[in-house]
Amino acid sequence: MSRYKLTIEYDGGPYMGWQRQDHGPSVQGCLARAASKLNSAPVEVHGAGRTDSGVHALGQVAHVDLDKDLPTDTVRDAINQHLRPEPIAVLACEMVDADFHARFSATRRHYIYRMIVRRPPLTLDKGKIWRLPVPLDVDAMHETAQNLVGTHDFSTFRDVQCQANSPIKTLDSIAVRRVADEIELTCSALSFLHRQVRSFTGSLVEVGRGKWTQRDFVQALKTADRSACGPVAPAEGLYLERVDY
Amino acid sequence: MSRYKLTIEYDGGPYMGWQRQDHGPSVQGCLARAASKLNSAPVEVHGAGRTDSGVHALGQVAHVDLDKDLPTDTVRDAINQHLRPEPIAVLACEMVDADFHARFSATRRHYIYRMIVRRPPLTLDKGKIWRLPVPLDVDAMHETAQNLVGTHDFSTFRDVQCQANSPIKTLDSIAVRRVADEIELTCSALSFLHRQVRSFTGSLVEVGRGKWTQRDFVQALKTADRSACGPVAPAEGLYLERVDY
Repeated sequence: MSRYKLTIEYDGGPYMGWQRQDHGPSVQGCLARAASKLNSAPVEVHGAGRTDSGVHALGQVAHVDLDKDLPTDTVRDAINQHLRPEPIAVLACEMVDADFHARFSATRRHYIYRMIVRRPPLTLDKGKIWRLPVPLDVDAMHETAQNLVGTHDFSTFRDVQCQANSPIKTLDSIAVRRVADEIELTCSALSFLHRQVRSFTGSLVEVGRGKWTQRDFVQALKTADRSACGPVAPAEGLYLERVDY
Repeated sequence: MSRYKLTIEYDGGPYMGWQRQDHGPSVQGCLARAASKLNSAPVEVHGAGRTDSGVHALGQVAHVDLDKDLPTDTVRDAINQHLRPEPIAVLACEMVDADFHARFSATRRHYIYRMIVRRPPLTLDKGKIWRLPVPLDVDAMHETAQNLVGTHDFSTFRDVQCQANSPIKTLDSIAVRRVADEIELTCSALSFLHRQVRSFTGSLVEVGRGKWTQRDFVQALKTADRSACGPVAPAEGLYLERVDY
């Protein structure tokens, strides 16, 4: 038996999310079906992060065990072949030790949230960026976001359906900056709560558009109460950028 | 009567091309239908360039005449409203003199052709870039492309269905360069022949992958014979970037 680490890119638009669901297509389900074609028995796919419905990935990581010892390029190309025409692709494949686990061995997860300020609807980037028709104060958003760095009770920015044992998490870094005509929020942590990035991004946008002060934001965080959260940012702007091991 | 200049962005994927067709949806047709809702009589939309089926635009230009004298922001927003859910958007609208013509007043058209070298299929950029699974010598492509600058008989790089009176055109500039993990070809001219950019891009890729020498490319151009053209690059990588007046 050989264990393979897969780096995966996908357009989350058509899926119920990463995790296999009974009621619709999932990225995990598509990958499991494709990988199983290389194996005698059905394959289980273990992902580093359970991205939500509509959330994209530039570098999700997963591992699979195959009973045959195949060259890594063959595994990558064969899975990609069986994935067609799904917008999911294995970018890289490497053989790893049996104690590697995509979820539990991860040391850091990096997310990007893309925003654009414009009035006309999106065309080429439809479903790939959050379009905001009002100007945003990017400096205020960046400065306010720094209050999230460190260890906090993130109950305010945690979905009610979150299954984590504790609302306490440590955010390593966060930045909000202009990149060409877009605004990009990047953040990194060992792990995130359910909808945490979309929740604090939505509240930071309230600061950016001048509806909330920095003090309002800090108050919402400190309250540690979900009802203090601003509108949650839509899934379409969020990307799991990369996972460190 | 007022004449409005519209700057338009679209995803060319779902359309038969810019030009109104009997056998399928066109960008011009969608725009005419939307603009006609602001007018007492059906509106004609005159575009700067007739992009082919599947070709995108970041800044196509068109003009329309409306019998009412409406604020430009109203025209932009109302057309966008009526365009939904088509992936076509009016980015800007300005009032122009009656002698302005989107096609005949244009002084320069700028195109971008996007390529990416990678083996896995595209996901997020599906239909937006030409994926090439083999390495390309970008410097050789750029150097070779310089032979196209100036006035030439472009018969080699002209589609058999091209309706222009003459195959002689003047290319003002062309460049091929790496932009992040992509390769971008940009070129500018007063006007282009049918499929000219896709035709010379395809032949430049033959140079980039080492199948053609620079001399082969120059020979193909000088022959002025369509049969000397390399494989035509697919529509999905091409963007009408902007039009100057």
